[in-house]
Amino acid sequence: MPQAIEQKLATIRAHMDAANLDAFIVPRADEYLGEYVPAHNERLLWCSDFTGSAGTVIILKDRAAIFTDGRYTIQVKQQVNGECFEFYHLIDTPHVAWLSEQLSANANVGYDAKVHNLNWHNASKKTLADKQINLVAVNANPIDLSWSDRPTPTENVGLLLDEQYTGQSSLEKRQQIGVDIAKQGADAVIISALDSIAWLLNIRGKDIHCFCVILGSAVLRKDGSMTFFTNPAKIPAGFHEHVGAGVVIIEEAQATATYQALGEQQLQVLADPEASNAFSQLTTQQAGATLIAGNDPVALPKACKNAVELAGMRASHIRDGASEVRFLHWLETEVAAGRLHDEAYLSDKLTGFRASNENFVELSFDTISAAGANAAMCHYNHNNGVPAQLSMDSIYLVDSGAQYLDGTTDITRTVAIGSPSAEHKKMFTLVLKGHIALANMKFPAGTNGGQLDSLARQFLWQQGYDYDHGTGHGVGCFLNVHEGPHRIGKNSNGVALEPGMVVSNEPGYYKQDEYGIRCENLIYVVAKDNGNDGNIFYEFETLTLVPFDLHLIDQQLLSQDEVNWINAYHARVCDELSPLLAGADLHWLSQATRTI
Amino acid sequence: MPQAIEQKLATIRAHMDAANLDAFIVPRADEYLGEYVPAHNERLLWCSDFTGSAGTVIILKDRAAIFTDGRYTIQVKQQVNGECFEFYHLIDTPHVAWLSEQLSANANVGYDAKVHNLNWHNASKKTLADKQINLVAVNANPIDLSWSDRPTPTENVGLLLDEQYTGQSSLEKRQQIGVDIAKQGADAVIISALDSIAWLLNIRGKDIHCFCVILGSAVLRKDGSMTFFTNPAKIPAGFHEHVGAGVVIIEEAQATATYQALGEQQLQVLADPEASNAFSQLTTQQAGATLIAGNDPVALPKACKNAVELAGMRASHIRDGASEVRFLHWLETEVAAGRLHDEAYLSDKLTGFRASNENFVELSFDTISAAGANAAMCHYNHNNGVPAQLSMDSIYLVDSGAQYLDGTTDITRTVAIGSPSAEHKKMFTLVLKGHIALANMKFPAGTNGGQLDSLARQFLWQQGYDYDHGTGHGVGCFLNVHEGPHRIGKNSNGVALEPGMVVSNEPGYYKQDEYGIRCENLIYVVAKDNGNDGNIFYEFETLTLVPFDLHLIDQQLLSQDEVNWINAYHARVCDELSPLLAGADLHWLSQATRTI
Repeated sequence: MPQAIEQKLATIRAHMDAANLDAFIVPRADEYLGEYVPAHNERLLWCSDFTGSAGTVIILKDRAAIFTDGRYTIQVKQQVNGECFEFYHLIDTPHVAWLSEQLSANANVGYDAKVHNLNWHNASKKTLADKQINLVAVNANPIDLSWSDRPTPTENVGLLLDEQYTGQSSLEKRQQIGVDIAKQGADAVIISALDSIAWLLNIRGKDIHCFCVILGSAVLRKDGSMTFFTNPAKIPAGFHEHVGAGVVIIEEAQATATYQALGEQQLQVLADPEASNAFSQLTTQQAGATLIAGNDPVALPKACKNAVELAGMRASHIRDGASEVRFLHWLETEVAAGRLHDEAYLSDKLTGFRASNENFVELSFDTISAAGANAAMCHYNHNNGVPAQLSMDSIYLVDSGAQYLDGTTDITRTVAIGSPSAEHKKMFTLVLKGHIALANMKFPAGTNGGQLDSLARQFLWQQGYDYDHGTGHGVGCFLNVHEGPHRIGKNSNGVALEPGMVVSNEPGYYKQDEYGIRCENLIYVVAKDNGNDGNIFYEFETLTLVPFDLHLIDQQLLSQDEVNWINAYHARVCDELSPLLAGADLHWLSQATRTI
Repeated sequence: MPQAIEQKLATIRAHMDAANLDAFIVPRADEYLGEYVPAHNERLLWCSDFTGSAGTVIILKDRAAIFTDGRYTIQVKQQVNGECFEFYHLIDTPHVAWLSEQLSANANVGYDAKVHNLNWHNASKKTLADKQINLVAVNANPIDLSWSDRPTPTENVGLLLDEQYTGQSSLEKRQQIGVDIAKQGADAVIISALDSIAWLLNIRGKDIHCFCVILGSAVLRKDGSMTFFTNPAKIPAGFHEHVGAGVVIIEEAQATATYQALGEQQLQVLADPEASNAFSQLTTQQAGATLIAGNDPVALPKACKNAVELAGMRASHIRDGASEVRFLHWLETEVAAGRLHDEAYLSDKLTGFRASNENFVELSFDTISAAGANAAMCHYNHNNGVPAQLSMDSIYLVDSGAQYLDGTTDITRTVAIGSPSAEHKKMFTLVLKGHIALANMKFPAGTNGGQLDSLARQFLWQQGYDYDHGTGHGVGCFLNVHEGPHRIGKNSNGVALEPGMVVSNEPGYYKQDEYGIRCENLIYVVAKDNGNDGNIFYEFETLTLVPFDLHLIDQQLLSQDEVNWINAYHARVCDELSPLLAGADLHWLSQATRTI
C-alpha cells in the first residue's frame, strides 16, 4: 500500500531538518528540464499526488503549498490533499515571492540545483536575498532520500540511427556546431536538451514514453569532440564506430568532474540559462569558467531538416496517412452500423492501424481521442477517467501521431458522427479557412511565426471567436513532437521560419461543455525563387495526407480559392495514398476526397 | 558666406583640445531626443552638411567619420565632404565599437550627456571601458562653442488648448498619471517627450515645424504637481489658471538644481532610459536618487483618446477630407486640360485647400508630393532637388496632413494621371486589399500591432511582393503625427492595441525607379461587445474620408466582400463630405464614390 502524503511529508521534513532547511522547493522538472519527465523523476507527483505537467511544491516545516496555473485550478484540488497543502495560482502568487513573505531573515531555503534552470536560480536568489533569506543548494535531494519505492530508471539499450535516415553523420554535425560555438566566442557548450543530444549523436532511445531519447547530458567542444554523461549500459554496440571520432561516454554521476575541469581550464562555456540546469553552469563557473548565455546551438540546425530527413518525413506521412484513412473508414462503417465505441477503443484501434506500418516505433504522444464535449478540453486524455462513448449527431476529435524510424507524425482530424449541426459546420469551416490561409501563405525570408499566427485566426476573429493555444509547434524527425526554436503563435519568440523547418498548422475552436474542433496538418518551409524585386520568399508544403471531413464543411463560407485548395489537397491525398490502400478502404478514400 | 566644413572642424578641434578630448561624438538628436530637431539644435547638420534624420558624427584629432543607415548610403556621400569624413554604415560598423578600435588606452571621448539617452551612455561607457578609454561628459558642447551663426531659438508664445478640445483638465491628467507613478513605486518621473508635456498641460506651441510643442522638459510628482523647464517667455497669459494647481515654470537652464533636489530628497525617480537624456537621469542619480527604468507613463493614456478627442478627430477629418477632395477634383481637371504641374505646385495647391479650413493650424508634416518614379522613395521630399513634373499615364502619390485645433490628419492617396497600366492597377489593388483586410479586422483584446501586420501584407506576399516600412504608426490629437507607444509593423514592441488609439493603415508598394503606391487612412480602435464566449473583441473605425481612385482598381482581383467594403466606405465618404462641398466639387465626389 502506498505511503500517505502525510507520511511522505514527515519523512521529507526530517531530511530537511537534518540539512537545517526551513523550506524546500520541488518543481515538476527533472535535471533535463524537458517537457517529459520519466517516472523515476516524478518528484512533484510523488510528494503531492498532482499529475499536471507544470507546478511547484514548497514544503515548509509545518505547512506546504502547491502552485499551479489556470489549466489545473480544478484538477489540483481534486488530486492534492487540501489538509496538507495550500493552493495558489502561480501567476497571481509567484512561489518564491510568496516564500520570501513566509520566512524570517536568515532562514534557509533548500533547492536541488539540478532541477532548476540558471535564470530561476538567479532571480530566486535575489528575491530571497532581499529579505536576508538564504537559497541553499542541497547535496542530496530530500525527496530522493525519502522516496523508498522510487521506480528504477530504465536501462533500455538505445539504437543507432543510420545515415539513410539522418542524412548527416554525427561527426559532421558536431564539427559544424563546433564552428558555431567558436563563432560565439565559446570553447564548449553544455547541452541539456535530450533531443539535441540524440540528434547530434544520431542515436535514439527508449527512456521516455513517446519521446525517443536516452537520458543524459553533454558537453560539446568547439573542435566537435563531445562528452556524453549517461548510463553506459544503454549505449548500443558499435556506438563509437557509428558516431565517429571524439565522443566519450561517462557515467552521469561522474559529470561533476568534467564540469569542474572546464572551469579549471578557464574556458568560455556557452549554456542556455533558461534550458540548462543551474548545477552544471554553477559548477563550471565556480571552478573558473566564464559562462556565455546563449541559445542551445543545436536547436536551429536540428529544426532545419535536411533533404534526407524531409524525404523520410514525407514517406512516413504517406504510411501514417494510409493508416489514418483505414481508421476513418472503419469508424464511419462502425457508426453506420450503430456501433458507437468509446474513446479508449477508438484510440486503441487507431494505434493498431499505425502499429502495422513499416518503420513504426511507437506513438509520438498519447492519442487525444475525444468525443463530444470532451474535445472542448484541448489536452483531454481519456485515461484520466472513464472513456466516453460516441453519440450520434456529434463531432469526434482525434489528435494522434507516431514515431517512425524515418519521421514523426502529428495529425488532428475532427469528424462528424451522424449529422453535424449547422453550428458544427460553421465553426469547422471557419477553422478550416484559417488552416488553409496559413498553409497557402507565402512570406518573405525573416518572417517569424508570430507574424503569421493571425492569418490562421482571422476568420474566427472576424466573428468574435478565438482559440486559446498556439497555431503551430515545431516537430522533430523521429524525435520530439514538440520541437523548438520556432513556433507559430500569439507570443512569438522572434525566431524566423527557415527552409526545412517542420511546424504544425492547427487552428481550432472549443465550445466549453459542447464540442471541440481542430484541423491539424504538419507543414514545412520551402524556399521559392519568385523573381520579383530579388526578394527571397518562403512557402509551406503540407506533409500530412488525410482527407478533411467533407460532412463538416459549409461550402457557402468558402471562397473559390479555398474550394480549389481543398480539391487540390484532396486530389494529392488520393494520389499519394491510393497505392497503399485497396478494396473498400480505397473506395472510401476516393469518396472522401471527391471534388466539391 | 557660410563657413566651410574644414574651418568648422578646426574650431571644434580647438575646443576639444582645450577640454583634453581625443574624440567627440555628435548624434543627430538634441536634448529632447525626439523625431524632430529645431534648427538651432541641428548640430550634426552644422558640422557635416548631412540633412538625414538619423546619423552620428565622430570627430577625432585628425580624422572624422559619419555613421548612417541604409536609407542614406547614397545621400550621405552626396552631401558630406569625403575629404573631411570617412563613411560608415551604422549597423555594420557600430560607432562606439569603431571608436574603441581607433583610440589607445586612457584616451578621453567627449559626449554631451544632454543629447544621448541613458541606455546609450551605459552601453558606450562599457564598450570604451573595456579598452580603458574614458567617456567624459563635457560641460560645454564643443559644437555650441564653435557655432557662431547658430539660429536663435524661437520665442513663439504657445497656446492654451481648451477642454472643448482636450476633454480632460491638466490637473486631472496629472493626478491620474501621478497615481500610476506611485503604483510603480516612484515619487516622480522625468518626462522628456515634448508631446507628453504638451498633452499633460493642455498646451501647444510653435517651436518645431509641423509639431505643435513648446521645447522643454519636465518632472511630474506622484501628487500630480509638475515642474516644467522651458523659456518662460513662451508661456501664454492665463497659463496657471488653465493648468490648475501645482505647476511651476522654471527656466530650462536652471533644471539641474531641480534634478539634484530630487536626489537630495533620496527619491525614487522613474525615467525611460531609452527616451530620456542621460544628463537628467545621471544628475538625479548622482545626487542620491534611485532611478526606476520604465516607460513614459504619459504615453499610453495620451494614445488612448477620450471621447472629446475622438469627436475632434472625426470632425477634423471631415474638413480635411473635403479639402483633399477639392484638390483631387482640381488635379483631375488640370490633367484633363493637359496642365501637368510639378510636385511643388501640387503640394502648395493642396496646402492652400487645407489652410482655408476651420481650426487649421499648420501641416502635420512636409507633404510628400511624388510624381512617377519619385514615389518609389517612401520619404521623398521635392524640396531636396528640382521638383518633378507629372507625366501622362503614370501614377502620383501624395501623403499629407494637417494640424487642426481639434485633431491631426495624415492621409496618402495614389491617383492615376492619364491611363494607368495593368501593372499599376494590379499593384494598387493588392495594396488596397491589404488596407481593407486591416480596416475590416476584428481582434481579441490584448492583440498587438505586430500580430495584425501580416493581414495588410498577405496579398502582396502571396505574389512575392512586400513593402519596407511599417503598416501603421500612432497619431496624436493636435500633436505628433508619429506617436507611440503602439504601432502596426513587423517589429512589434508588444504594446496591445487599446480602445481610442489612433493608428495609420498604410500598406504600400514601391518599384524602384518606376512608381510608388500607398493607401493610407487613419483608423482608431473601438471595443465591441460580441457576446460570443464572453470575449472582448476590438475593431477599427476609419477616420479618413477621401475616395480611393477607382481608375486604379482591378475589380477582378477583389472579392465581393472587398467590393462591398469599398462601396460602403465610399458611400460614407460621400455622405459625410457632401455638406461641405458644392457645385463641380460635389459632382466630382459623387462620381468618385460611385458604386462599383
